[in-house]
Amino acid sequence: MTQNTKGPLSGVTVVDLSRILAGPYCTLLMAEMGARVIKVEAPKGGDDARAYGPFVKGKSAYFASVNRGKESISLDLKNEADRAIFEKLLKKADVLVENFRPGTMEKLGYGWEALHAKYPQLIYASASGYGHTGPNSKDPAYDMVVQGQGGIMSITGSEGGPPVRVGMSIGDIGAGLYTAVAVNAALVHRLKTGEATKVDIGMFDCQIALLENAVMRYTVEGEIPGPLGARHPTIVPFQAFKTSDGSIIIAAGNDGLFLKMCEALEMPAMASNPEYKTNALRQKHHARLQAEIEARLQGGTTEHWIAVLSKAGLPCGPINNVQQALAHPQVAARNMLVEVPDGSGGTLKLAGNPLKMSAFADPPTRPAAPDLDGDRAAILSFIGE
Amino acid sequence: MTQNTKGPLSGVTVVDLSRILAGPYCTLLMAEMGARVIKVEAPKGGDDARAYGPFVKGKSAYFASVNRGKESISLDLKNEADRAIFEKLLKKADVLVENFRPGTMEKLGYGWEALHAKYPQLIYASASGYGHTGPNSKDPAYDMVVQGQGGIMSITGSEGGPPVRVGMSIGDIGAGLYTAVAVNAALVHRLKTGEATKVDIGMFDCQIALLENAVMRYTVEGEIPGPLGARHPTIVPFQAFKTSDGSIIIAAGNDGLFLKMCEALEMPAMASNPEYKTNALRQKHHARLQAEIEARLQGGTTEHWIAVLSKAGLPCGPINNVQQALAHPQVAARNMLVEVPDGSGGTLKLAGNPLKMSAFADPPTRPAAPDLDGDRAAILSFIGE
Repeated sequence: MTQNTKGPLSGVTVVDLSRILAGPYCTLLMAEMGARVIKVEAPKGGDDARAYGPFVKGKSAYFASVNRGKESISLDLKNEADRAIFEKLLKKADVLVENFRPGTMEKLGYGWEALHAKYPQLIYASASGYGHTGPNSKDPAYDMVVQGQGGIMSITGSEGGPPVRVGMSIGDIGAGLYTAVAVNAALVHRLKTGEATKVDIGMFDCQIALLENAVMRYTVEGEIPGPLGARHPTIVPFQAFKTSDGSIIIAAGNDGLFLKMCEALEMPAMASNPEYKTNALRQKHHARLQAEIEARLQGGTTEHWIAVLSKAGLPCGPINNVQQALAHPQVAARNMLVEVPDGSGGTLKLAGNPLKMSAFADPPTRPAAPDLDGDRAAILSFIGE
Repeated sequence: MTQNTKGPLSGVTVVDLSRILAGPYCTLLMAEMGARVIKVEAPKGGDDARAYGPFVKGKSAYFASVNRGKESISLDLKNEADRAIFEKLLKKADVLVENFRPGTMEKLGYGWEALHAKYPQLIYASASGYGHTGPNSKDPAYDMVVQGQGGIMSITGSEGGPPVRVGMSIGDIGAGLYTAVAVNAALVHRLKTGEATKVDIGMFDCQIALLENAVMRYTVEGEIPGPLGARHPTIVPFQAFKTSDGSIIIAAGNDGLFLKMCEALEMPAMASNPEYKTNALRQKHHARLQAEIEARLQGGTTEHWIAVLSKAGLPCGPINNVQQALAHPQVAARNMLVEVPDGSGGTLKLAGNPLKMSAFADPPTRPAAPDLDGDRAAILSFIGE
């Protein structure tokens, strides 16, 4: 479906060979920003994600969630007639996105060198497991594999407990986000200079980049960070605390907020304790500090303490489940749950677009995800076939 | 320091009022892409992150990690002379980035409406806790608070265990990434049309967007997702398994890979078991499937099974800690650990830039993070003072 809202990428055409999640998440963002995204899918079955549940009336809601607002044409890139169509598409496209195993595009005759020579306007973006260079470049990778290899699992989980997966696909979605940053930058560069570039994103690289602070702590201090449950590694108090009926998060990110918190909780002895005077001292004594705060918080419910601390201007809040998160007033106010036709007369509710811009509308609905080959006629007409 | 590498954003000037992490992570990416980023900091102490440990020779490595390659000038935005300097900077800037509590810029007389009227070329990007609209817009927020409110903690952790924090600051870094996507898109739009736009990113919105699949599963199936330890919610087997000496991640993301895995593990009964024939069936019987696989994997070490499964082309790998992750051969091959002067004659090793582009070099070093007000002379000369 091509009725995307107008956005900063209106007029940009993306040919999208990507499947499953990392590449499609990048092109979802591009569609949300107004680009025309043409999925080129294998004739039998298309994008693997079409087979991932849950299903609504036989159609994958997993697929719809990341492919709404795109168009689809099925082409066999080993068939001459289909290759001719694909090449006409490339001629009219601004960006090609793919997330094949490195080497696949070269085997098809569509590696960067070949494409750049023939379509000098075309930005080529690849999101692969380990990037297009290096000794492990061709290793197969999925989200879980790079979450494990990249170290993020080793710092996520209960203190002393086994490493756990980040509950969303940070391996894929992270790579999709960095790819979108880079593709937009490549569009800026092309608009300024006329030069198209290849973007080579490795999911593993993105995991290292996302570690950020943990990389620095390890290289500076030499200590290997481990999982810390629900507290921040270096800022104290900045964590979840138990209350009489659940948990509360308090983020007292500096000395002023710490004193404010002590006042709001009516804990003057804590405020004046020299062992809690600075963040470094609080970190040293964090276990005792936590025990003292939790002893106090046992005297009230999460709701009570949120009211008390919010009134005092402290950053604090509950630990919401997905239902509670979606019921937060900001979700409706910020249009973060959009309606998308399920293709069978019903409606899906999917995560909205956080890229809010004053120059563009953010309507409450989005076009459906395409059926496999569902936009063939419009796409053939676009390339003059 | 202004000797950033040339990149797709070369020639772009960013005035950066942002502090701590979400905004600075966005402008770090912009500096990595070649933009000139001028931090405007409060005269006493500057960016709060300058006070966050660990410290190297008295300087914050936390600060250096996200502010390397930027310049700094300290200005008091309540002082007339300093405001005049700031306004000259805005006149020459392409982008203003800030992550104040909503309303702060308006109080200073620098809200979007006022700035857009006076500096029509200026893209204005805000990254706040809840965005600039909605009933909770002005609530204070830090990373932990939006991680809790946005639902990601509720799906991260051991099965049946307490929710845990994602080990890195996904609240801040996520918002920084979406802000970078949007700012680059706004640059594209301005190059095409001349129009500058306001970008309004809410950290909470970004958390909802990052949930993605979990939002869809809840709205489609009505079940509230919980933490699942180290396995994927809907793809089986796609998880960590215990071996004789640790854990291994196996990501058999489709039926073909599942059969390949059974063959490599020499488990023909599993391959032919009709109860494991499809992903939906495997999900239904995942506990039994896991027990059978783990019984087999007890017969060898993680290293052994990685060798066996890799040879068969299965996506698999270890759960690395940060030290092991940084020792992965791709980190050196892909320049994902860069050297940055610590400002006192030594060198920091920090996470590199995953935005690899063929048109631009990716040198092994980066300029230092600026001292507070360290680039005043160069910045004043830039605006003709």
